Amino acid sequence: MDSILILGAGRSATSLINYLIGKAPEHGWSVTVADLDESLAKEKAGDNSFSKGLALDISDSDKRKSLVKRHRVVISMLPPHLHVVIAHDCLEFGCHLLTASYLSEEIADLHTRVSAKKLLFLFEMGLDPGIDHMSAMALKEKIEQRGGEVFGFHSSTGGLISRRSDTNPWHYKVTWNPRNVVLAGQGTAVFKEDGQIKFLPYHQLFENFRMIEMVNGEQYEMYPNRDSIRYCDLYNLRDVKTLIRGTLRHPEFCSGWAGLVRLGLTDDQLAIAGEAFDSYRSLLLAFLPSGNQPVEEKIYQRLGKKDASVARQILWLFDDSPIEIPRQRTMAQHLQDLIVRKWKLQAADRDLVVMHHRFDYTRDGKKWRTISTLSQEGLSSSDTAMTRLVGLPLAISTELILTNKLTLEGVQIPVRREIYEPVLARLEELGVHFEEETSAF
Amino acid sequence: MDSILILGAGRSATSLINYLIGKAPEHGWSVTVADLDESLAKEKAGDNSFSKGLALDISDSDKRKSLVKRHRVVISMLPPHLHVVIAHDCLEFGCHLLTASYLSEEIADLHTRVSAKKLLFLFEMGLDPGIDHMSAMALKEKIEQRGGEVFGFHSSTGGLISRRSDTNPWHYKVTWNPRNVVLAGQGTAVFKEDGQIKFLPYHQLFENFRMIEMVNGEQYEMYPNRDSIRYCDLYNLRDVKTLIRGTLRHPEFCSGWAGLVRLGLTDDQLAIAGEAFDSYRSLLLAFLPSGNQPVEEKIYQRLGKKDASVARQILWLFDDSPIEIPRQRTMAQHLQDLIVRKWKLQAADRDLVVMHHRFDYTRDGKKWRTISTLSQEGLSSSDTAMTRLVGLPLAISTELILTNKLTLEGVQIPVRREIYEPVLARLEELGVHFEEETSAF
Repeated sequence: MDSILILGAGRSATSLINYLIGKAPEHGWSVTVADLDESLAKEKAGDNSFSKGLALDISDSDKRKSLVKRHRVVISMLPPHLHVVIAHDCLEFGCHLLTASYLSEEIADLHTRVSAKKLLFLFEMGLDPGIDHMSAMALKEKIEQRGGEVFGFHSSTGGLISRRSDTNPWHYKVTWNPRNVVLAGQGTAVFKEDGQIKFLPYHQLFENFRMIEMVNGEQYEMYPNRDSIRYCDLYNLRDVKTLIRGTLRHPEFCSGWAGLVRLGLTDDQLAIAGEAFDSYRSLLLAFLPSGNQPVEEKIYQRLGKKDASVARQILWLFDDSPIEIPRQRTMAQHLQDLIVRKWKLQAADRDLVVMHHRFDYTRDGKKWRTISTLSQEGLSSSDTAMTRLVGLPLAISTELILTNKLTLEGVQIPVRREIYEPVLARLEELGVHFEEETSAF
Repeated sequence: MDSILILGAGRSATSLINYLIGKAPEHGWSVTVADLDESLAKEKAGDNSFSKGLALDISDSDKRKSLVKRHRVVISMLPPHLHVVIAHDCLEFGCHLLTASYLSEEIADLHTRVSAKKLLFLFEMGLDPGIDHMSAMALKEKIEQRGGEVFGFHSSTGGLISRRSDTNPWHYKVTWNPRNVVLAGQGTAVFKEDGQIKFLPYHQLFENFRMIEMVNGEQYEMYPNRDSIRYCDLYNLRDVKTLIRGTLRHPEFCSGWAGLVRLGLTDDQLAIAGEAFDSYRSLLLAFLPSGNQPVEEKIYQRLGKKDASVARQILWLFDDSPIEIPRQRTMAQHLQDLIVRKWKLQAADRDLVVMHHRFDYTRDGKKWRTISTLSQEGLSSSDTAMTRLVGLPLAISTELILTNKLTLEGVQIPVRREIYEPVLARLEELGVHFEEETSAF
């Protein structure tokens, strides 16, 4: 029986594949990399005796099942909606399953059946979700073991660009799925603050960012994620007064993005015929008031205030270049085409992943605050910190399973000590290090 | 064979039913009023020999078909999605069909079959759509016949409250479907201005209202409707530089509603558990920033400016009364529950319907502007101007069909002279009068 099957050989799987292939000789593993694109799979698998790459169309169920059947652990890097198909294969053939995706209700409902077969389906085992769960739970446990009673929790992550590769007025480049960048925050954010539930609608979200400070003194803007409330249960923090999960951006990004939102440039409903506009600038003008005033003035009019920095950001983005795909597309899709080009990661660019946790708690009648922060840079546009931090937790937990050091069963996410303790320890060895600072207040 | 079948006997059908029953003896008509609620149908039909009320469940196709079969004209006051069922019955049994609803593509596609049977399916034959089409087209025709070349067109309608019945800081009460009031403007408005397509997103819509003035000098706020562009074709105004269709409100309404939108209080996506809040005021607080500052200050913070009038409107609405329906409902649904109570039309209240058209055109080398406005008050909360102005065009065109004065065939809306000329003339006799004013500029 082969040991490990990795489904999907895209950019996000690189670190994962390299780690496992690197460990294969030592443990006697064989690693199979399968992708719709055979040459990509073969390239990632490399040319050696303990790994192979092959073509797989997930909808070809005979081939898929015969492949799953021959492995002990399956790691799915496929789009989230495909995990359920793989989960049923794994149940049928008795394989462990790992993914970096959010756990769906449909998968969670398999828990009893998965346990009965003594299997582990480990979801949310990447960066966010993944390392965020593990590092937050480990720190919470440490604080509580020392007698701390947590009353406030803030936690946020950002996939950014290193300051040395920051070459545009947005201080941002696309290091992950650009569709998610464009639609970020759509909906109403829900969190808990000062003992009350708070709702923050989309068109307020980016204007109402907060500044957070890392242990190393760097500052980032944070906007709340869609649903922070579920973390009250997930992290067993039901009695906290404040719980906010958020996303981090370099300073100035949120105000600029708030400007795009305010002008209506992130709308994903209305289809706009790209061919009706001869450039992105003329498309922008359709969202601005009529009149002969300078375009900056028109932007200020719609923003409701004079903000030269935001106008500069918007005008830098919406330049005189022609519409990339001049067809009926939503404004969000046109914007995505634009940022994919204007915010493109160059070969030598280094990405930056930042994570920030803040626990407020009482101990010995005093109030304390512990901040724990992670800051990791990539090496190039292909070897990114993002890929590394998504892939390593999956790779490490696969290693733990195959060496019998992780024997948990059922459908799980890494909020349990059996998982986060060994995984965080190994991540630390690999240089994934959180800095911590505690002060009374 | 009976003459007229009216499907639906709700409030919006009252004027229609009364007009047709009043004309029945003179023309020898018999009028059938059918509703799910038998007693309502009987009450509206009255106690006489030429009209009758009866119970009808539209989903009972045998009964429905046998009823349709016995009539020459069917008027559907049913919810729009049911018209298609009735349309197929009418085609099958050779009946004319009239409604006050927007024409759907599905119905428009029946044109050839309807014409072949020498029938008329007349849609958009109420107030808006209805009287708006007819009065705009009649005025456009008059201007063009005199040699005018139209380059700008504004048209808007409002269902409001008479100044004498205006008792709240919003200057508004619910005279029509409250769900539509709450969801008004959601989406992106598209119109044409100064030769350019313009997009105005929902969260900008109510802030960017314009003032319009009636011939009698009264002023109203106007915000653009969702899609003005289709009227370029519909009204044969393809070459105009500006075309904006809008909705009218009393001054101060739009700023107040913009405030609700800005706070996120009209959101129809996220479900909110009503039982988690002990009053509408505490629900409001969940949409405001944390802190000890007065609630007005919190509102200003989110509005991005100090506007005491808007704060007063919002606080008047979100009072200390308990949540009407303390279940999981979207914020838009909670808001609807609230306005149905706070903006309730009292028995003696008079509603007000206003309509405004503005044509800008060149003639003899000069620029001209013609404004045409309608202002109609109701008599009470049951005898509203809204009901009258929706019902009369349907009633009059039914009369024209049955007296062979309207012999048009096919699927139509009232943008053709054969329809609008006689209908507007009869409306004028009934006191539905537009005031007109022309000036050079």
